[in-house]
Amino acid sequence: MKESLPLQVEDGELALLTDLYQLTMTQAYWKEEMHEWATFSLFFRKMPPTRRFMLACGQQHAAELLSRLRFGDEALSRLADTGQFDQGFLDWLGNWRFEGDIWTLPEGTPVFANEPLLEVDAPIAQAQLLESLVMNLVQLETVLASKAVRLVLAAQGRPVVDFGMRRMHGVDAAVRGVRAYRSAGLAGTSNVLGGLRHDLAINGTMAHSYILAHDDETEAFRAFARHYPGTTLLVDTHDTLEGVRKVIEIMREEPEVDVKSIRLDSGDLGKLAKGARALLDEAGHDDITIVASSGLDEHKIAALLEDGAPIDAFGVGTQMGVAADAPVIDLSYKLVEYAGTPRVKHSPGKINLPCRKQLYRRQDESGRYIGDIIALRDEEIDAGEPLLRQLVQGGRLDEKAMALAEDARERVTDALDRFPESVRRLAEGESDYPVELSPELERLQSKT
Amino acid sequence: MKESLPLQVEDGELALLTDLYQLTMTQAYWKEEMHEWATFSLFFRKMPPTRRFMLACGQQHAAELLSRLRFGDEALSRLADTGQFDQGFLDWLGNWRFEGDIWTLPEGTPVFANEPLLEVDAPIAQAQLLESLVMNLVQLETVLASKAVRLVLAAQGRPVVDFGMRRMHGVDAAVRGVRAYRSAGLAGTSNVLGGLRHDLAINGTMAHSYILAHDDETEAFRAFARHYPGTTLLVDTHDTLEGVRKVIEIMREEPEVDVKSIRLDSGDLGKLAKGARALLDEAGHDDITIVASSGLDEHKIAALLEDGAPIDAFGVGTQMGVAADAPVIDLSYKLVEYAGTPRVKHSPGKINLPCRKQLYRRQDESGRYIGDIIALRDEEIDAGEPLLRQLVQGGRLDEKAMALAEDARERVTDALDRFPESVRRLAEGESDYPVELSPELERLQSKT
Repeated sequence: MKESLPLQVEDGELALLTDLYQLTMTQAYWKEEMHEWATFSLFFRKMPPTRRFMLACGQQHAAELLSRLRFGDEALSRLADTGQFDQGFLDWLGNWRFEGDIWTLPEGTPVFANEPLLEVDAPIAQAQLLESLVMNLVQLETVLASKAVRLVLAAQGRPVVDFGMRRMHGVDAAVRGVRAYRSAGLAGTSNVLGGLRHDLAINGTMAHSYILAHDDETEAFRAFARHYPGTTLLVDTHDTLEGVRKVIEIMREEPEVDVKSIRLDSGDLGKLAKGARALLDEAGHDDITIVASSGLDEHKIAALLEDGAPIDAFGVGTQMGVAADAPVIDLSYKLVEYAGTPRVKHSPGKINLPCRKQLYRRQDESGRYIGDIIALRDEEIDAGEPLLRQLVQGGRLDEKAMALAEDARERVTDALDRFPESVRRLAEGESDYPVELSPELERLQSKT
Repeated sequence: MKESLPLQVEDGELALLTDLYQLTMTQAYWKEEMHEWATFSLFFRKMPPTRRFMLACGQQHAAELLSRLRFGDEALSRLADTGQFDQGFLDWLGNWRFEGDIWTLPEGTPVFANEPLLEVDAPIAQAQLLESLVMNLVQLETVLASKAVRLVLAAQGRPVVDFGMRRMHGVDAAVRGVRAYRSAGLAGTSNVLGGLRHDLAINGTMAHSYILAHDDETEAFRAFARHYPGTTLLVDTHDTLEGVRKVIEIMREEPEVDVKSIRLDSGDLGKLAKGARALLDEAGHDDITIVASSGLDEHKIAALLEDGAPIDAFGVGTQMGVAADAPVIDLSYKLVEYAGTPRVKHSPGKINLPCRKQLYRRQDESGRYIGDIIALRDEEIDAGEPLLRQLVQGGRLDEKAMALAEDARERVTDALDRFPESVRRLAEGESDYPVELSPELERLQSKT
């Protein structure tokens, strides 16, 4: 029946969501009695060309999950079936608990290339085992939040609502994506389970099929508005401005009908919004708002507003749901220290920063960010508060530090205001925000 | 604790993975006593510019899940909390069972724009409720399989292995993606849970961190090869050809060491593969194969092979894991018939095909495909076997029809051979494969 319930990943199975080599390498460390502590650092080397910053999201969440990771009996017996693992090692895996430390940036921290999002210090066999899963978990939320925040910036304070559930990559992306959207500042989601689970307002309008299932549009509008006072009516099924006229006519005939908004979902949205606004205002309905959807992204929203389109809220799906212009980021989870010594892979043309690290974001007197410094973790630096916090210590989650995840949305809004405008700009190109290495890290890097 | 176990979607919760308007529209149908049967059709309007065909995958799987969909008590109580639903409706939802029919293409059917992948016939309140979930489920597998099959085509018979788990969008994408990869013809996956669950060979090599955790590369190679006879050694941590020389030296010193392959993961893969091949052959190791990975996609694989790179197998991750060049497809699930009459939204410039449909793929005498015909479901057409099969009848899954999912991989290979070369070509552009409407559908479409 496993094949029939493929959307469930039980707690004891989650540890198998990894690349085989993590398990074979871990068995090798176990056989070789390599128990020294290692540090792995999670970062990305290059900003996607369509991004000027990424929002680090999911890393606190991942740390929490990792601190609870277990190999269930069923998982161990499936591993035994592969024939690649000794019974002694499988017994050891059965008792496996993460006993190390995890440092993370708070959820919703804007980050740039080469900055650590998360670091793990643990016996190497523990730290290695987390690699594939931590990357999968952090990438999803980071990629989605980094796209969504651009929609929020483009809408200049107007609400942006997620309509993307049907376009997202599977069930987990759709549910956990809403957590990323909340951090990024979306006003709501159409996704019921995602919204319930991650505490984001759940919004909904109506679909063309509802209109088409009725014999005429006016009848459909009338019925829906009666069922749902304060609703949003979808006016473009046949002819958008005709649809608006029908809504106005219904309200004239039945003044008790309560319509809050109309939604435009096709055609020239800017032109139709202007036409609809004029009709509504003329009929005395300047309180009825206009929601637009249909293939929107940050550039289309910016262009509509630039052109003065009287749109009050945006519904976005396809482009945001998979972060279509940057659906993947080259996160790395690299060994940077083992047994107290720096370790770095030699990669021509690539920066690999050794050792345990810390990140600082310098501010001027008025609180504006003037540059980041990547430093060694224990280095003394006069650059304000360190950003990486210890979330898991000796395998135990620090609930107080975890609470920082709750404030992600406020953190994002506050942080974005403090960056230079070139970081917030939507157009392709790099910002002029400086990210530097500390003197100690600089010295160590040129040495290794 | 719900927020703490966010990777689980319980069976009774899955029905909440939908857009709010599906539930409000369904309640409206319930209130209005609209119980007539409707047909919804799942299709996409436009091929992504980087695709010449899509592989329809996940639709049988989705049909199976949908036929078992239930609203659990917890789900109903969460819905009640939203204040938008009457108790009578919630009771009705508690007894909700899908009682309609679902027709699908077999898993792994190549499809083109406007062709139905799946059709649902059911009382409208049942058919409407499935929309968002069926789109989410089918899109994931279709998008991933349609990318993966291009890698398989590019590799011209050489094995292609999925290394992408860490780059995929969350847990469900990573697990269910392997099902799509199996259908598309990948030879294996590094993803343990995905491979176990969806019966694809699980492969693994080693990571740079294993080399770096040892004091020297030779020592690391030696240890790993002893643990895993027949293994693949990663040779590029410091210097690729030096790494190959070390492998050769180890085998000279310890002839019992059994190395099956080496893996190249950085640099100029073509040049390094030639250099490595020459060194291995010179040392009498022409049986040791070369695996290449690192940012590969179908175009890079094709270019490497065109240039004669002696690479025997490919590991692919990032680009394939999110189908980066076409991460989303504009699937539509449209009402096409209600209460026995055709229903179509008027969309300037868009084709909307009314009514229940069937798809035919015409063959010439030698079995080559010469064109598709989209027809009405009950139309008499002399064009061979109909492709859509009834998988769910009166709410019950037909296990025999479901078994067709097992043969997806063979179906894909067989089908691709029968299409004209312009369908298989990797370069951007449209194929010349014709898709036509049947006479009846043509007439009905121009009428509506």
